[in-house]
Amino acid sequence: MSEPSGLCTLGVRQIVDGIRSRQFTAEEVVGSCLARIQIREPVVRAWAHLDEQAQQRVRHSTPGGGSLAGVPFGIKDVIDSSAMPTEMGSKLYSGHQPRYDASCVAIARAAGAIALGMTVSAEFAGTQPTRTTNPHNPGRTPGGSSSGSAAAVADFMVPFAFGTQTGGSVLRPAAFCGIVGFKPSFGLYSTSGIKVAAHSFDTVGLLAREVRDIALIHAVMMNTEPVAVTKPGRHLRLGVFRSHLWDTVHDDAKAAFEMAIAAAEEEGAALVEIPTPEGFEGITEHRAVINAFERARGLSAEWSAGAEDMSPQSSEVYRRGIAITGDAYLGARRRLDEFRHQIDHIVAGVDTLITPTTPGEAPEGLSYAGDPRLQELWTMLHLPSITIPFASGSSGLPLGLQLIAARYADADLIGIADWFSQISRPR
Amino acid sequence: MSEPSGLCTLGVRQIVDGIRSRQFTAEEVVGSCLARIQIREPVVRAWAHLDEQAQQRVRHSTPGGGSLAGVPFGIKDVIDSSAMPTEMGSKLYSGHQPRYDASCVAIARAAGAIALGMTVSAEFAGTQPTRTTNPHNPGRTPGGSSSGSAAAVADFMVPFAFGTQTGGSVLRPAAFCGIVGFKPSFGLYSTSGIKVAAHSFDTVGLLAREVRDIALIHAVMMNTEPVAVTKPGRHLRLGVFRSHLWDTVHDDAKAAFEMAIAAAEEEGAALVEIPTPEGFEGITEHRAVINAFERARGLSAEWSAGAEDMSPQSSEVYRRGIAITGDAYLGARRRLDEFRHQIDHIVAGVDTLITPTTPGEAPEGLSYAGDPRLQELWTMLHLPSITIPFASGSSGLPLGLQLIAARYADADLIGIADWFSQISRPR
Repeated sequence: MSEPSGLCTLGVRQIVDGIRSRQFTAEEVVGSCLARIQIREPVVRAWAHLDEQAQQRVRHSTPGGGSLAGVPFGIKDVIDSSAMPTEMGSKLYSGHQPRYDASCVAIARAAGAIALGMTVSAEFAGTQPTRTTNPHNPGRTPGGSSSGSAAAVADFMVPFAFGTQTGGSVLRPAAFCGIVGFKPSFGLYSTSGIKVAAHSFDTVGLLAREVRDIALIHAVMMNTEPVAVTKPGRHLRLGVFRSHLWDTVHDDAKAAFEMAIAAAEEEGAALVEIPTPEGFEGITEHRAVINAFERARGLSAEWSAGAEDMSPQSSEVYRRGIAITGDAYLGARRRLDEFRHQIDHIVAGVDTLITPTTPGEAPEGLSYAGDPRLQELWTMLHLPSITIPFASGSSGLPLGLQLIAARYADADLIGIADWFSQISRPR
Repeated sequence: MSEPSGLCTLGVRQIVDGIRSRQFTAEEVVGSCLARIQIREPVVRAWAHLDEQAQQRVRHSTPGGGSLAGVPFGIKDVIDSSAMPTEMGSKLYSGHQPRYDASCVAIARAAGAIALGMTVSAEFAGTQPTRTTNPHNPGRTPGGSSSGSAAAVADFMVPFAFGTQTGGSVLRPAAFCGIVGFKPSFGLYSTSGIKVAAHSFDTVGLLAREVRDIALIHAVMMNTEPVAVTKPGRHLRLGVFRSHLWDTVHDDAKAAFEMAIAAAEEEGAALVEIPTPEGFEGITEHRAVINAFERARGLSAEWSAGAEDMSPQSSEVYRRGIAITGDAYLGARRRLDEFRHQIDHIVAGVDTLITPTTPGEAPEGLSYAGDPRLQELWTMLHLPSITIPFASGSSGLPLGLQLIAARYADADLIGIADWFSQISRPR
């Protein structure tokens, strides 16, 4: 990554504070971000659409006193924007202009944040690869499907962006790009104005470079005070959940994970090894049934209108999903409901679960956006999850640590993640 | 209601069968429905937009072999249609033309059904009254928010329509208009292309005149075989759930309800009185908090863009909801989750719960669409519910019987409702 400099390197809170104390203006911040984009976009390719007028609009607007006043942000291209086309990463939505912003965009704008553009999304937030590259190495995937949001934030183009997660689409790219990705408990942020992928899982998420920035944005979204960050390590009960997917984790990521939990223990946290619940390995298959059934129905109209303009990946998901019977779907949903009850009991016994975010570093090439299974567990179980950068892998690329808390314990989770990010800085 | 005649009086299955056996054509069916609409629309006012070209398009199309081939239907005006404006009952969406159909519309069309138009909805599927009248008495409300869908089906303008239910917006108007209304388990039908009201509750539902028509449409939506309808009454365990709202039920509705359960007992069903769970009366208030919090955030963009074009009702919901703190919202969600577990155990002990659908007949006038509390219980608890017409009240207007089953037992519920509609025809 070419070394960034200037205001574009600041986080959300630093920008808010700096504008409030008149150290700099929103226009200067936007200008710095746009300059960074101009330099880096040819390589990173994070943007589906840029609002070229953003700086001019800021110049002519009255600075507001909102909690995010003057903070530039990016919007994943499956989230409606009234000011820019929202194209869902699909030819079928070429030039599509929603009349209104999605809820999350409207709330951020009402708090004073400034949308710089639409970030590249995999087609319909699925598994189709995108043109976006990993800011740390253009030969590697940034992950998906919130590819552009993660790359733009990691590359200092914007201090935060919205993404969506139906499987692992916020946390995986965040981990591959070395930033923080947060997926709230299911249903906490309104899905109004979001293209439905699989409605049982779809969750709006946040990408930023600092945990405390996530805390601030989360507070705006939820109408609460920002959480008191940095929880004490002492008495913290960390549930080490290796799961049935531990064997998929690469050696460098395993070693880094063991170092991270050792560091937490050294700081006073109690480690609790959580055995994988019986039958848990079947959960991935149940999710696949629900995901395909729902995605196919969510794309029924697009398929009828223009199947020929759908990518092979989306077409395959449609064909597989539309053939699934209602009985198979309900069977998978019943089983998943049971897993949710089971995990609720497990999580209740600790402050947070901890696992690697991904099996390892970002894979080489752009044709495969990485394995979603470690992240999608928590999306389907409806628990809040967050990834923080905490180490480098054998190729020097970022590795993420994933923390998971009980449903609705989102604010506590963010606090614990902040503590963790203090004790385990990437080295 | 003026006496209908001809093909418009047929139900969904009768239309499908008649076209298949060449007794009549889809064009004739559509023509009969449009003729009925022409006669009755000045009084009933069920339609926000009519597709004047429907008959001509049917004439020039090749008849398909789909499960709903040739069946006309209506679409609530908060459900996207690619062929007609979708205006959400709001000035803010005047002339709004979605690019694609909502999932439910696309699935019905793919099965051969023919959309005749958009039916009148309360603004944003809320509580604002509409211009639609009750087909049985134009001085009475048809109920809301799926006002037009219920009135159009009840008045023989279409054999079925889609509605949405966030509180009681499918079952209440169905009951007031004397037809069948079905709300599936939460999340069974895709919400793709539906304007979000309160995402924790929003459910696409069906309105028709016959339970067996609901069975067929449900099978199409879910990719299953239509349920074997008419369950035997013997050994059927009916949970009589009067709830904390029993005191709100009028005397005529109470008497009719007692007659209905006595008739079921006579046919061999076992009645099980279900006591109201402790603390259950607080559930309505918890729902109100969640509903307002989510609705306000779902309307944030519309509010920012044009608060002056929002009705007093929607403005009030927005103002109330946007002020609710995240902590209050999470507290209500936690409590509601507990109620869901509790009711799951109760419902598991019977085949179906049974309650009145509404406190009584449709209220006089159009300014109040009726009390949603008896219907919204099951929306918020995520259980499937269905209303069937089963009696007349003291003014001769329809009364509905509400049946509720365990989550995902939708097909069984429809079967039991069919049995019930055989033993307790309106008298």
